[in-house]
Amino acid sequence: MIGQSNMAGCRYLKDVRQIYDEQIKGLVNARWQTMTKPINFDRPTAGIGLAASFAGAWRLANACEQVGLIPCADGGSSLDDWAVGGALFENAVFQAKFAQRNSILRGILWHQGENDSFAGRSAVYYDKLSVIVDAFRAELDASNIPFIAGGIGDFLSGGRYGKYFTEYKEVNQALQKYAAETPNAYFVTSTGLTANDDGLHFDAVSQRKFGVRFFESFSEMKSVLAPLTAENNLVDIIQDRPLTKIEKIALLEISFGSGNISLKDFEEHLIVINIQ
Amino acid sequence: MIGQSNMAGCRYLKDVRQIYDEQIKGLVNARWQTMTKPINFDRPTAGIGLAASFAGAWRLANACEQVGLIPCADGGSSLDDWAVGGALFENAVFQAKFAQRNSILRGILWHQGENDSFAGRSAVYYDKLSVIVDAFRAELDASNIPFIAGGIGDFLSGGRYGKYFTEYKEVNQALQKYAAETPNAYFVTSTGLTANDDGLHFDAVSQRKFGVRFFESFSEMKSVLAPLTAENNLVDIIQDRPLTKIEKIALLEISFGSGNISLKDFEEHLIVINIQ
Repeated sequence: MIGQSNMAGCRYLKDVRQIYDEQIKGLVNARWQTMTKPINFDRPTAGIGLAASFAGAWRLANACEQVGLIPCADGGSSLDDWAVGGALFENAVFQAKFAQRNSILRGILWHQGENDSFAGRSAVYYDKLSVIVDAFRAELDASNIPFIAGGIGDFLSGGRYGKYFTEYKEVNQALQKYAAETPNAYFVTSTGLTANDDGLHFDAVSQRKFGVRFFESFSEMKSVLAPLTAENNLVDIIQDRPLTKIEKIALLEISFGSGNISLKDFEEHLIVINIQ
Repeated sequence: MIGQSNMAGCRYLKDVRQIYDEQIKGLVNARWQTMTKPINFDRPTAGIGLAASFAGAWRLANACEQVGLIPCADGGSSLDDWAVGGALFENAVFQAKFAQRNSILRGILWHQGENDSFAGRSAVYYDKLSVIVDAFRAELDASNIPFIAGGIGDFLSGGRYGKYFTEYKEVNQALQKYAAETPNAYFVTSTGLTANDDGLHFDAVSQRKFGVRFFESFSEMKSVLAPLTAENNLVDIIQDRPLTKIEKIALLEISFGSGNISLKDFEEHLIVINIQ
């Protein structure tokens, strides 16, 4: 997971149902843990990103396997912030290399471009991105895995900060062109997805749909240029997956550890789960 | 910041007033950002740790300087999890080395031991810790900076999980002995500090006091073996520091970005702050 805030996700945690699955992991301090929210905690506003439903869709298609997410997105980052040898690039390589000690790197998820949508930056987007992706592939010995880039929001020109994003269409064109011309690179449209009040960040419901589109791209090895007819249903199926007893207990422990329920309530709920 | 969950902190965010200071940074994706809570987000239950008030005390003593925290603690980790060459060790070295590109490493804060308080593990605590700290110092070219270790809670033997921590006293003795016998190593007592309902984690108010004790150790270069008479006052002074206009706006943006206030309320509050 690399890119800027829309890869890290938005904080509207309550607008969607939690995806919690023991078989979906997230890398924390270079080690695998069960994925929780927010998975990519770069800023206090991070929350629901596209990667959770991507992983959920992956699990639907791979019922007996584990999937792991490596969260390295950083809010507000430009392509220059992702330059080869810089902190963001090196951190992502470091984390991915640790994951590779006991896992297989299967894909790279990218969402970035808002911070290159002005001041002529879009004109050099294609070339800068190309250098960065080539370097990731070389560092991680990952020449053939899919690189999947999501389009930035059509809503960017409206809203409070709209006047800054004069080149968001050109960035989307650059992303799409890069995907069309580069082996193992794909573009996923954001058409129809909507924003929070800030006009900057995909809302949580849209992030869920986006993740499902990313998985369609990943599994079919093609760009996704229009919304999927089944995406809402698929999101429901992923979110409504029944929890195992261990998962119910883990979520109860999180609720207790967060101070949301008392020790008495925790122990009572625990008895109920264990009886079931 | 290395160790296990009591270094990462507990989730009872509302029990204390937030410490938010533009001059207190936290390392995120190997880059400095203004510190927010939770600073060491290893698990969804992470929250208020001792490092925030440590940094706040540091700022009181160094009004014109910035301080940065490098969060690398990982919940439930044993000394074996911190073994040289393992993921936690290597991640902490990596993050600290990136920080060293534009900062000076001034100290190592350690809180760990709960997961070595049973099954005879306490008997080898001293030797294992010694190897780990020596390796950190060597890797980071940091032979002379203080290593400050906090005592684990006296409350561990009571409470829901008390029967597991049969050797917590021996771990505290090992930490204290290590500090007494090792140059630039100090011990900070947890005497008088209290736990959440789980009987495992220091409550948020106690974490604030603990951080102030850590700073006393850091600034005086000595172990702190009893509670400080002024610690409550110092915590109040740190928490009641007046916010600058930029800080007020940043917190307002976080509140809006988190979906806690509407766009209308955000803009109205913004006007009020800008008038002040």
